[in-house]
Amino acid sequence: MVPLYLRAHSDDNVAIIVDAEGVRAGARDGGGLTVREFIPQAQKVALTSISAGDPLVRYGQTIGYANRVIEPGRWVREEMIDLPAAPSLDDLPLATAVPAPLPPVDGDTFGYTFEGYRNAEGSAGTRNLLGITTTVQCVAPTVEYAVRRIKSEILPRYPNVDDVIAVTHGYGCGVAIDAPDAAIPIRTLRHIARHANFGGESLVVSLGCEKLQPGRLLSPDLPVLEDVIRLQHAHGFAESVAQILRAAERKLEILNRRRREPCPVSQLIVGLQCGGSDAFSGVTCNPAVGRAADLLVRAGATVLFSEVTEVRDAIHLLTPRCINADVARALIREMRWYDQYLARGSADRSANPTPGNKRGGLANIVEKALGSIAKAGSSAICGVVGHGERVQERGLIFAATPASDFICGTEQLASMNLHIFTTGEGSPYGLSMVPVVKISSRTALAEKWHDLIDIDAGRIATGRATIDDVGREIFEFVLDVASGRKKTWAEHWGLGNALVPFNPGPVT
Amino acid sequence: MVPLYLRAHSDDNVAIIVDAEGVRAGARDGGGLTVREFIPQAQKVALTSISAGDPLVRYGQTIGYANRVIEPGRWVREEMIDLPAAPSLDDLPLATAVPAPLPPVDGDTFGYTFEGYRNAEGSAGTRNLLGITTTVQCVAPTVEYAVRRIKSEILPRYPNVDDVIAVTHGYGCGVAIDAPDAAIPIRTLRHIARHANFGGESLVVSLGCEKLQPGRLLSPDLPVLEDVIRLQHAHGFAESVAQILRAAERKLEILNRRRREPCPVSQLIVGLQCGGSDAFSGVTCNPAVGRAADLLVRAGATVLFSEVTEVRDAIHLLTPRCINADVARALIREMRWYDQYLARGSADRSANPTPGNKRGGLANIVEKALGSIAKAGSSAICGVVGHGERVQERGLIFAATPASDFICGTEQLASMNLHIFTTGEGSPYGLSMVPVVKISSRTALAEKWHDLIDIDAGRIATGRATIDDVGREIFEFVLDVASGRKKTWAEHWGLGNALVPFNPGPVT
Repeated sequence: MVPLYLRAHSDDNVAIIVDAEGVRAGARDGGGLTVREFIPQAQKVALTSISAGDPLVRYGQTIGYANRVIEPGRWVREEMIDLPAAPSLDDLPLATAVPAPLPPVDGDTFGYTFEGYRNAEGSAGTRNLLGITTTVQCVAPTVEYAVRRIKSEILPRYPNVDDVIAVTHGYGCGVAIDAPDAAIPIRTLRHIARHANFGGESLVVSLGCEKLQPGRLLSPDLPVLEDVIRLQHAHGFAESVAQILRAAERKLEILNRRRREPCPVSQLIVGLQCGGSDAFSGVTCNPAVGRAADLLVRAGATVLFSEVTEVRDAIHLLTPRCINADVARALIREMRWYDQYLARGSADRSANPTPGNKRGGLANIVEKALGSIAKAGSSAICGVVGHGERVQERGLIFAATPASDFICGTEQLASMNLHIFTTGEGSPYGLSMVPVVKISSRTALAEKWHDLIDIDAGRIATGRATIDDVGREIFEFVLDVASGRKKTWAEHWGLGNALVPFNPGPVT
Repeated sequence: MVPLYLRAHSDDNVAIIVDAEGVRAGARDGGGLTVREFIPQAQKVALTSISAGDPLVRYGQTIGYANRVIEPGRWVREEMIDLPAAPSLDDLPLATAVPAPLPPVDGDTFGYTFEGYRNAEGSAGTRNLLGITTTVQCVAPTVEYAVRRIKSEILPRYPNVDDVIAVTHGYGCGVAIDAPDAAIPIRTLRHIARHANFGGESLVVSLGCEKLQPGRLLSPDLPVLEDVIRLQHAHGFAESVAQILRAAERKLEILNRRRREPCPVSQLIVGLQCGGSDAFSGVTCNPAVGRAADLLVRAGATVLFSEVTEVRDAIHLLTPRCINADVARALIREMRWYDQYLARGSADRSANPTPGNKRGGLANIVEKALGSIAKAGSSAICGVVGHGERVQERGLIFAATPASDFICGTEQLASMNLHIFTTGEGSPYGLSMVPVVKISSRTALAEKWHDLIDIDAGRIATGRATIDDVGREIFEFVLDVASGRKKTWAEHWGLGNALVPFNPGPVT
């Protein structure tokens, strides 16, 4: 039987309604709570008598303060809740409660493997792609035109190559390229140009006069070894396209010789993200992904959690989990940088929640953040990387990104070769460069979006599965998808959201 | 015979080398100047003896100060020139030299016409397009998938419709949507959604949970009348696509009944832009476009010039030309806003020039700006609109935009139904929503990019045509293209750069 409500923690004085139809006034649970008014699914019910000024507690944490008396059984609506101040960044505990290393999965000390494409520099691909990188948006339509022709005329002769990707973006010129913050989009695009799924064979198309010259894009210290085609050197459009086609064919011949082989799970870098979250996200899909994250870490993988404004209000729960004080300080540094960035634009972290989040029962950014960090599981935080940097460490890593789905995904592509995306309201998001595994917070969404959602974590809310069950299922599915044995729905339909590099610097 | 150099103004003490091969040491002009060293095309030669600290004068204006002695005939390189301070915004002359109204073209008091698609609200289309607007990037791949199917399966049955456009962008969620600067991308997208080339029939695809809700995107005060499809209401991907296809077919039936009819040139709104400029731009293509702009204004059209950082250093030449003090003050307001915006990101207008600009002979932003404003011709400046606002006035208008090609084009799309793009280094830029007429500053580029450049203004440098000749040619070509009698090269190849709305506000 579907429970009346779901309480995330034994200290909570609010819980969320489970039934998709909502709950009518007069409904009672076993413990004697009587619901006083109709409350829709995912919205909060008061479990105890709450006075004005009392903390409202979910996940065992204060998500806000009641600004009026709230009787037990009442609908606790957004406007009854005052937003608390964000935790101070000045006196946080640093590495004071570091989780012990988790044991290998199933006691398998040799570690799990997946079938990947090994790269010379030590990484592994989950897909075998030809990537055509662009230095500037001016050349994007030319490259897209060429890619359409490559896909229809040339790619069919190279069946071991999965796809050809035009790595286009809205950056590269018309920007203050020496401004301090320009480093972020540039390094993001640099790492994407050398993505593990491109097998070390990426091709670069440049205009010629742009600010983001190929040398600047690809290598602050290394020589530029990639094939670079400059359109301003070509004799017009048809010749430009012909040149790209010839270069692509050379690359496809090389890529077509690659084969999958067993790779240690330590070559898997999994980016975690949530988008269109609801109040279930923090008790179903996100903790299930957290369990999968623990399994991945135990099997040797790297797992990225991100989205600064969705960890900011839970920072006091994360700094103690950092493996040492330096990592904790790096985490605080990223929070502080983003606080200042938002303040420069007359905003703060309270600007994060969307209309859909609120309709889905998330009253404010504190409640959203507490649910969001459940994705990070329970292992120690082993490292922190800044916006668009490539991860070097193994284990659980905080990779700073905005929370914006497409910007977060773009920055995680600097490192990840597989993406897990949880959603409550539903998003048909996908990426061309890596498989995106989509997990729903509610069964109703998984049923409605039967051809978009890969795994339904809503079964946890209705008692049909445990967090452990779904966590294990995600873990196994990730290994299947990484190995090419299974495809995600986003891959099935070919859904690839355009890259949107984070550019906090000015455009000119 | 090709002249040795091109002097833009009789007061100038520097000029640019014309010959594509450059000029060797020892070359002499008729007036007795001997070139002292090899100077490449488009680079500057000193015409007189210049002392350290002397102003370097081009276009009759100081483009910088010599930081060393420069002998006549020497190559005046970038590093010899100190950048002057930008003109102060505090004591500019306001509307002190307003040009007299220009006479109608050819004395035709009834005005020119073009063959356009008349819209109910008084505007006219230059193309007949079905536009499918998106509120948020999450839905972009779904809409692009649907548009591919519409184009191949449905559009062929509606031959009077030119194309189907997925109006996708990287905005709509993950942003501080109530931050003051968020108004800019929102109004840009609002006006684009109701573009004159969509014939009042645009369709909107929304996710459902996004920050930029359809009501917020489309109407601060009007009711939302457009067809809106919300993917979160649909039962999965295949049904979402089917729903978009059905709605598109309804719209195509209506659009297919439209026919071109004579429209007054006052319904033409022409956006001007330069991209990849060189030192010829300011003496060939830009003044020719300026002459075409004068003709268009005289025929009743609206002409937009833009690119704040490329008018900033010439602002003292523009405020006197404003039709009244209010317009001049609005122009100054846009300069000041952008100065502050750049300063917030630790940059200023000197960040504008690109490596290609400099290779092409533009020493700094002052020289670039003086060449850029030549596009604005010689008529009075009748109005100023802020970033992404839709123009209401007729005549020559300053529409504030960044100088970034793709961002400027996106903001001009809020108003324009035809685009003129001048280039020195060459850019294969195009837009899906309006024809883009491309004009080269040099003949060498027009010859090399024979299938991208529509009009060669380089003939002006070599004496094969006058500014008047090319200006008239552009004017006639614009009317032909607007009327659908001719296509631009960008249209021929289907080159459409993605929209990049200017977002000075923070992402969350």
